[in-house]
Amino acid sequence: MATLQDVANAAGVSKTTVSRFLNGSLDLPLRTADQIRAAIRDLDYRPNPHARRLSLGRSDTIALIVPDISSPFFATFVAAVEAEADARGLSLSLHATLNRRDRELSYIDTVARGHADGLIFITNHADDGELGRRLQAAGNCIIVDEDVSGTDLPKVFSDNEQGGYLAGRHLAEAGHRHLMLIGGGEEMISGERRHAGFMRGLHEVAGPQVRILRHQGTYTLETGRAAARRFLESPVDQRPSAIFATSDELMIGLMEVLQTSGIRVPEEVSVVGFDDVGPLHLFAPAITAVRQPVRDLGKSALALLLERAADGNKPPSEVLLPVTLIERASVAPPMSS
Amino acid sequence: MATLQDVANAAGVSKTTVSRFLNGSLDLPLRTADQIRAAIRDLDYRPNPHARRLSLGRSDTIALIVPDISSPFFATFVAAVEAEADARGLSLSLHATLNRRDRELSYIDTVARGHADGLIFITNHADDGELGRRLQAAGNCIIVDEDVSGTDLPKVFSDNEQGGYLAGRHLAEAGHRHLMLIGGGEEMISGERRHAGFMRGLHEVAGPQVRILRHQGTYTLETGRAAARRFLESPVDQRPSAIFATSDELMIGLMEVLQTSGIRVPEEVSVVGFDDVGPLHLFAPAITAVRQPVRDLGKSALALLLERAADGNKPPSEVLLPVTLIERASVAPPMSS
Repeated sequence: MATLQDVANAAGVSKTTVSRFLNGSLDLPLRTADQIRAAIRDLDYRPNPHARRLSLGRSDTIALIVPDISSPFFATFVAAVEAEADARGLSLSLHATLNRRDRELSYIDTVARGHADGLIFITNHADDGELGRRLQAAGNCIIVDEDVSGTDLPKVFSDNEQGGYLAGRHLAEAGHRHLMLIGGGEEMISGERRHAGFMRGLHEVAGPQVRILRHQGTYTLETGRAAARRFLESPVDQRPSAIFATSDELMIGLMEVLQTSGIRVPEEVSVVGFDDVGPLHLFAPAITAVRQPVRDLGKSALALLLERAADGNKPPSEVLLPVTLIERASVAPPMSS
Repeated sequence: MATLQDVANAAGVSKTTVSRFLNGSLDLPLRTADQIRAAIRDLDYRPNPHARRLSLGRSDTIALIVPDISSPFFATFVAAVEAEADARGLSLSLHATLNRRDRELSYIDTVARGHADGLIFITNHADDGELGRRLQAAGNCIIVDEDVSGTDLPKVFSDNEQGGYLAGRHLAEAGHRHLMLIGGGEEMISGERRHAGFMRGLHEVAGPQVRILRHQGTYTLETGRAAARRFLESPVDQRPSAIFATSDELMIGLMEVLQTSGIRVPEEVSVVGFDDVGPLHLFAPAITAVRQPVRDLGKSALALLLERAADGNKPPSEVLLPVTLIERASVAPPMSS
């Protein structure tokens, strides 16, 4: 096997020069750099894995940064990327940020330092621009699920607007005119799009005669529970007749509180979910939900990352994957109708 | 900030010597090594992160290798380790092996090459000894959830035998004498212990008059579905009156097929689960299950790893965490009684 000294001899430079060139601490004239690269190629010289990562950025490892690995949506997404990476002979390094910016930045730095050849990134909170700048600087990166503004990177999203639209139409067609929407805050693009689509679907069927109670928060069990308590606080005759909970976590939190309070679904209130990754089909009642193509999100993100690694000139694009409404048993006409 | 040259001056050696000592390519007399270490400590010299990982093995990163991140149990376990690592200022690097040995060995090698200071490892299949040898060689490692034989490493498990016992007693007390157990294969220690405890609980209440149909496989939806089909193939009067499904995945697969086939739980068959990490409380009916202390498993594993890193002489131990039976609505007396 060729040594560093062999490369140095072939390139006509010192061993130290090759070493410093490889670890990126030395800027060389283009011709010298080319001589070293040619020697490495001709001799099939393989630096040790650490040096290789430092210099050539070919670790055959993809990094994946997600907010929270315990939600069904992210857990399934990660599994899809893992299966796809495996099929291509790549390793995957996963990092969960707990949806906190300090942890996001720290993991992005780890990746940028060369531990991985590419990054698939998901955040679940709004950004003031810093995250966008750091992702842009990190290089080969794909943004999934929730947008990060101020970046010029490829993006893969579910068609959130269409998902909201399907839910809105479905509930309006069942007769609902007073509805609650539980969702991410206004600064979340996924939440805004689900909300916009929901309103479009409702208005298309019911015209302007709809009343919406919007309960905002994070995509967590706790926000789902809080929304349910807010629903219960209203006098019975002033409650919305249907609820659109825009994530599995929100739906689980919502259903926990409704069941504990003895509220019958769909007799007293209809519910429609979003994600449909958790076992909503086994709930009592089985929950109607907009299904995200979560495995396709994983596959598309990895494919896009590898395309971009192969052709850095490829312009960034936004890929929207289609969603579907899965009708089960949690929607009925409102009680009064 | 101290430079490599400062360290070399203080230790009375050349810069190259310090550099080679730090990257592990030079064996020095003990006294020289101690002089360099003292200089590094006194000057608070910090090599760059890569060199630091190569040399001192202090990356402040813990690696976590699990079979499959999309199961509720593993997803929740990982989230618990992440939260605990965060509280201690550590980063976490996760790897999912798809429960395949080639991927397990490859990720163990990555960790052993120095990307992480310690490893928490979970497998879900039997080992012929190779896995054990590689884990042992990888150094600072904790085995969780399922044993790997032939290792002298600390282990953290749920009390699987006690969990099986609680399920067995509960079903025997409800009157069941002909039961089905769905579980991991005989070579899985978790599966063996759940089975042994189940038999103990049944015998303690019902004496030897119990009949067990044991359906073995992996802890997956597919094994749960296959077991349900096997149950349905028997003539109605020869079916077991109760089923113990020893993981959330098995329970979800089982319930899918039972519901599709119109089998009423618990009227026609009682079911008890294991894990209780998925939203079994929202199922129709709410499922009685043995709850694993999955967050405590994560906390204990990390605590044990850090203890061991601090004191390599600490003898390895096996920690057993207590489980509890959560009674809901999926168990009733058998139809014929």
